[in-house]
Amino acid sequence: MAVYTNVSDQQLNDFLSTFDLGAPKSFKGIAEGVENTNFLLETEKGRYILTLYEKRVNKDDLPFFLDLIEHLANSGITCPTPIRDQDGKSLLMCAGRPAALFTFLDGMSVRWPTAHHCGELGKAMAKFHQSGLSYKNARANSFTIVGMQEFYEAIEGDINSIDPNLVSLIENELNFLKVNWPSNLPKGIIHADLFPDNVFFLNDQVSGLIDFYFACSDFLILDIAITLNAWCFEKDVSYNVTKASRLLSAYSKTRPIQPEELEVLPIIARAAALRFLLTRTNDWLVTNEGALVAKKDPMEYVRKLKFHQSITNPGSYGFNSN
Amino acid sequence: MAVYTNVSDQQLNDFLSTFDLGAPKSFKGIAEGVENTNFLLETEKGRYILTLYEKRVNKDDLPFFLDLIEHLANSGITCPTPIRDQDGKSLLMCAGRPAALFTFLDGMSVRWPTAHHCGELGKAMAKFHQSGLSYKNARANSFTIVGMQEFYEAIEGDINSIDPNLVSLIENELNFLKVNWPSNLPKGIIHADLFPDNVFFLNDQVSGLIDFYFACSDFLILDIAITLNAWCFEKDVSYNVTKASRLLSAYSKTRPIQPEELEVLPIIARAAALRFLLTRTNDWLVTNEGALVAKKDPMEYVRKLKFHQSITNPGSYGFNSN
Repeated sequence: MAVYTNVSDQQLNDFLSTFDLGAPKSFKGIAEGVENTNFLLETEKGRYILTLYEKRVNKDDLPFFLDLIEHLANSGITCPTPIRDQDGKSLLMCAGRPAALFTFLDGMSVRWPTAHHCGELGKAMAKFHQSGLSYKNARANSFTIVGMQEFYEAIEGDINSIDPNLVSLIENELNFLKVNWPSNLPKGIIHADLFPDNVFFLNDQVSGLIDFYFACSDFLILDIAITLNAWCFEKDVSYNVTKASRLLSAYSKTRPIQPEELEVLPIIARAAALRFLLTRTNDWLVTNEGALVAKKDPMEYVRKLKFHQSITNPGSYGFNSN
Repeated sequence: MAVYTNVSDQQLNDFLSTFDLGAPKSFKGIAEGVENTNFLLETEKGRYILTLYEKRVNKDDLPFFLDLIEHLANSGITCPTPIRDQDGKSLLMCAGRPAALFTFLDGMSVRWPTAHHCGELGKAMAKFHQSGLSYKNARANSFTIVGMQEFYEAIEGDINSIDPNLVSLIENELNFLKVNWPSNLPKGIIHADLFPDNVFFLNDQVSGLIDFYFACSDFLILDIAITLNAWCFEKDVSYNVTKASRLLSAYSKTRPIQPEELEVLPIIARAAALRFLLTRTNDWLVTNEGALVAKKDPMEYVRKLKFHQSITNPGSYGFNSN
């Protein structure tokens, strides 16, 4: 959410020299994308987003992401599409960083999605999942139960400073998930970070998805659980079953949610809540006071986790399979 | 250079409701402008910049700035022009901040200006000064000699941590300027921060000036001195007399630099260097390590100040008045 790397006019011209897009007319750093630097570029031929990949993104993952985004775009999912240069390459270097140029996407994210927005999201996510099934590459999820255990052990020492009950909550939850984690659910490419920030709307319809840099191979229902957490709770962390119902039923019209997926949704939703509880806890502990990054309260995800712990019947999520 | 205040879709819609610009199509926070939050907004009618004024800008100064920018635009100076709403107001509120909407300006700043760019800047600055002469309002410069003395006294304690000679250099310079400061030079509205960041070029011509939030009433030659410091030194802080000559002669074709201005240019240039030496020293001392703001080395301006201290003949600046 910041410009970490500056690009001079000369560096931009060098980068653009391998494309056929004409001279630049406008070039502005934008506050978009979690951990990369993004610029809005206008040339004589159109508008583009230039992304510079910063150190927190693993360079080895970039071909997976760029090929995925291109695959999605080619199968009709609207998303910023990587542009290949005159040598056919989409992953290049700019200002000393790995970099890629993307088509510009109209639309705006919504801060407080309505039930209508949730339905539109469900439809778009299902199409994304369908499209991902024909993508040939795979990438492991960093936030499996084992991955979350390792992440937790790395930050464990300071957690009590946020809330004295947080350590036991997290440890008990990790133990529960280790024992109860399901297998044999439908898998595919998940976005894994489909928060409202990453979904653009235009005229109340989804105009595109962005920021695929957590995408990985995992249970499709995990992506659904992440979106239930991100889209269907109110400010006071009450669960809005109308929104959830719209999301789930719209999704299911394109890719029917299977009974075995619905059955374990409470467990999957707990893992989805724990994943963001852990990273928000870490961000809360490490973010420098002056860094101008809006810190997100980890306790929001404690409350979401407790909601899912209380669910005894998956039907409570609002999915009406008929 | 950061997004200090977020604006939700709802807050944007509320703001736009008093304009007749159609629905928003795209809205992105941009890293532009020193101390304000800026968004690039596209609506059905065109592209705009939305500026939210943060706490470091004095609200009482905003009408001066907005009226100035409108005055400049009306007299043919290309700059982002404030857009008045249906009630004729340009200064409004958005997300709890004073805010204004501006036309979008094509062009890009250059990091390392050439002699050609310096000539173009000289021409644009002279036109800006000419236009400012008919602007009816005035605003005192915060960085007069007295203002710099006060600024210095507020940060004095920590300065030795940067360089042990800095305190005596600054104190001697302030004393010199107090005794030698000229009077009765041509005055008008100066931009006071016309660094390469704030000048856009398109096809190697100036396409516009931005960021007028230091503009004030003072000697016009002070603005020229600020630009000599900002545009005509090389990376190694050597003075490029070719660039300076182009800047000064191009300027003088529109507003002839007077002999009495040229005569005191070494003194004015020392004040111009001291002003940025002081603010960079302050930024160096107070900027939080994590704040993702590129700190600019105050010692660069020590070297520029020493260059001007060494000038015995104003002709050394490269101005050929014939």
